[in-house]
Amino acid sequence: MSEKRRILLQLDTDAQPSTFDSIVALDAGADVLLRYGGVRPETVVPLVHGAIFTRGPKDLPHTAIFIGGSDVALAEQVRDVVRKTLLPQWGLSVSVMLDANGSNTTAAAAVRTVLAHQELSGASVLVLGGTGPVGQRIAYLAAQQGAQVRIASRQLSKAQEKVARLQARLPHGRFLATQTASESALREALRECQVVFGSGPAGVRVLPKALWLGQSSLRILLDLNAVPPSGIEGVEPTDNGVLRDDVRCFGAIAVGALKMKIHKAAIAQLFTRSDLHLDIEELFSLSATL
Amino acid sequence: MSEKRRILLQLDTDAQPSTFDSIVALDAGADVLLRYGGVRPETVVPLVHGAIFTRGPKDLPHTAIFIGGSDVALAEQVRDVVRKTLLPQWGLSVSVMLDANGSNTTAAAAVRTVLAHQELSGASVLVLGGTGPVGQRIAYLAAQQGAQVRIASRQLSKAQEKVARLQARLPHGRFLATQTASESALREALRECQVVFGSGPAGVRVLPKALWLGQSSLRILLDLNAVPPSGIEGVEPTDNGVLRDDVRCFGAIAVGALKMKIHKAAIAQLFTRSDLHLDIEELFSLSATL
Amino acid sequence: MSEKRRILLQLDTDAQPSTFDSIVALDAGADVLLRYGGVRPETVVPLVHGAIFTRGPKDLPHTAIFIGGSDVALAEQVRDVVRKTLLPQWGLSVSVMLDANGSNTTAAAAVRTVLAHQELSGASVLVLGGTGPVGQRIAYLAAQQGAQVRIASRQLSKAQEKVARLQARLPHGRFLATQTASESALREALRECQVVFGSGPAGVRVLPKALWLGQSSLRILLDLNAVPPSGIEGVEPTDNGVLRDDVRCFGAIAVGALKMKIHKAAIAQLFTRSDLHLDIEELFSLSATL
Repeated sequence: MSEKRRILLQLDTDAQPSTFDSIVALDAGADVLLRYGGVRPETVVPLVHGAIFTRGPKDLPHTAIFIGGSDVALAEQVRDVVRKTLLPQWGLSVSVMLDANGSNTTAAAAVRTVLAHQELSGASVLVLGGTGPVGQRIAYLAAQQGAQVRIASRQLSKAQEKVARLQARLPHGRFLATQTASESALREALRECQVVFGSGPAGVRVLPKALWLGQSSLRILLDLNAVPPSGIEGVEPTDNGVLRDDVRCFGAIAVGALKMKIHKAAIAQLFTRSDLHLDIEELFSLSATL
Repeated sequence: MSEKRRILLQLDTDAQPSTFDSIVALDAGADVLLRYGGVRPETVVPLVHGAIFTRGPKDLPHTAIFIGGSDVALAEQVRDVVRKTLLPQWGLSVSVMLDANGSNTTAAAAVRTVLAHQELSGASVLVLGGTGPVGQRIAYLAAQQGAQVRIASRQLSKAQEKVARLQARLPHGRFLATQTASESALREALRECQVVFGSGPAGVRVLPKALWLGQSSLRILLDLNAVPPSGIEGVEPTDNGVLRDDVRCFGAIAVGALKMKIHKAAIAQLFTRSDLHLDIEELFSLSATL
Repeated sequence: MSEKRRILLQLDTDAQPSTFDSIVALDAGADVLLRYGGVRPETVVPLVHGAIFTRGPKDLPHTAIFIGGSDVALAEQVRDVVRKTLLPQWGLSVSVMLDANGSNTTAAAAVRTVLAHQELSGASVLVLGGTGPVGQRIAYLAAQQGAQVRIASRQLSKAQEKVARLQARLPHGRFLATQTASESALREALRECQVVFGSGPAGVRVLPKALWLGQSSLRILLDLNAVPPSGIEGVEPTDNGVLRDDVRCFGAIAVGALKMKIHKAAIAQLFTRSDLHLDIEELFSLSATL
């Protein structure tokens, strides 16, 4: 491989490309960023053509594509078009990573953090805020590890819709929709649960301490909310495995540190080949090596 | 000259600045790109002022301007404003290159490729798709070499309009407008022709093999279409001078390789002085040295 | 501090981020620019979050924010939101510089230039075009040095409004509003004046030579207009302290050279700490060290 600079196309569906994703990419080894905001499935093709038609197959590992933005579904559509536009049969391909809104790296870090302390195969897992992009990915990964996963939402129909999607994607996965609009419903959802993930909207308390305290099956609480108050009452952002009332707690900052490691390792990996597709599964596998 | 970084202003008339032009510029020696999409003649002046008022005359060879975009006429208007805004009389100037949609470098590569095998002075040349930006530039360069050039279009009036423009720009050039809407018209246009350039729209077959096969004056077929089918039936994208039925054939990939060399050499040249204007003639001259 | 690259967020309120500010930043030591046009107070928060949440406190001196754009008031609003978004209490901060339209560095250079030749404490100063962003900042700095400052405008009400604002910001400052719509009014404004700053709109003559010639108290004329004609008749852009009819003259190019030094030194300083706020006062102090 020649000494070509490592060029990363940062394709962001938001109007302003993310400074977060830019700085992480630079710190992870990208030499130059070509940044785009407002990227859409219908406008992305020429951007990909320029990436694959400018360097020969030998140098293409030094070009890569990162897809981000706060609208996860839109970013997935962009990714689909990007993949279809690549021409791997002619050696004209670049590696592609999808991490819209950090949802993939965050979910991978959350599940990996729990796995270091708790077998998930056969475990009962509750995902609060389970219908959001991060919650969905946590549910997917936990089910893949053999857990029975309850997707919680204030509206049962919303949870059921997401369960149907997850089931279609992972036919052998065990998913349940659960409604958590009331205290009694929350208490019911927690019954016999070993692990609770809190991935609800920022600054919203979704689980009061009174509800989880003394729940005897409970082993782990993991909360992803860095902005006070935490989603799960009693978990602090800096918690990194501390036992609180006999439950092991993990907060947003501890998980965030692993998320950053995964994110950087993934960017670095993009530049080792021209045929990688780093999505939730690949990022989760990668997290096992860190 | 000091060790200032080589900064290229990439001014693109398209909403999204071209990744193709960015990557080629980086590989050709630009250290930093300042990229702009949606550039218009009426908004470009402050961008040029910032380029010429920030470094002294001694360092200005390390700043340059590249103008691109798929609307060639609009890019030419931007170039005109850029040139007028430079202040060479005070030593406040930067070198400027125009290669909207790659039309200049592609045309230079196409004509240079033919010249390596065929004298054009006195030759009869047919340019299919001759009214597009690349076809126009091929016609101009071929006529400058002394060829008689037939500009082909499905509509005679369109071809005539382009001939009038070319004639105004190159008074001693020999141009003819020709209509090629039917097989008989195409056959007539090919009569006594030595060289055919195919520069029609991507993926459109403009010349069936049955029409050129056995045309005894024909020496060279050059097709610029990389997306199947080729514009000239029988010419493959990778053809690089192969004889097919006694006619020498050149395809888009072979010409594209030379185009890339011209493009990179031109970018590198921009950073050697502060008074270069690289347009079709200069890029064609440059191609002779590669 | 690690060897992280120095990343500058260039936040510009204009649609097209300034090439001037970009090139100066690169020449002053920024390694990578993350450039944004059309920045607004209501959209800037996620850009700041990405800046402070990606690197640890130890590395944050290698990230900084520059705020520019031709609408100075809007840029100041952006700055206010940027500052509020920083979290210095957690070590999550980056240094911030405001130089919308170059008004801060230009005003600092103008006043510093005069101070090298003329004590301002107790002096009588006239600022022509004193209601514009550069004129306002010159008035502020001159008053801070102890001068009595007359803010001139063609409309008295406009000058009065600006004086009220300056007075609120600098309660001990001595400001006067003066109308200069007629020759007699201009003559009156010049009476007993030692220093005149010309910071009116480009290409507009605001003071004919006949009016200042022979005015016995006059010591210094400084004109900021680089585009002919100069605002103050008789001052040339390259004047750097030359005596013309017994008055020391300074033109836009001489002041511009110092402005550039201040601008570059400020950018370099941004990357030495993570808690600097470089606005008019800090840039003026910095100019004393160059």
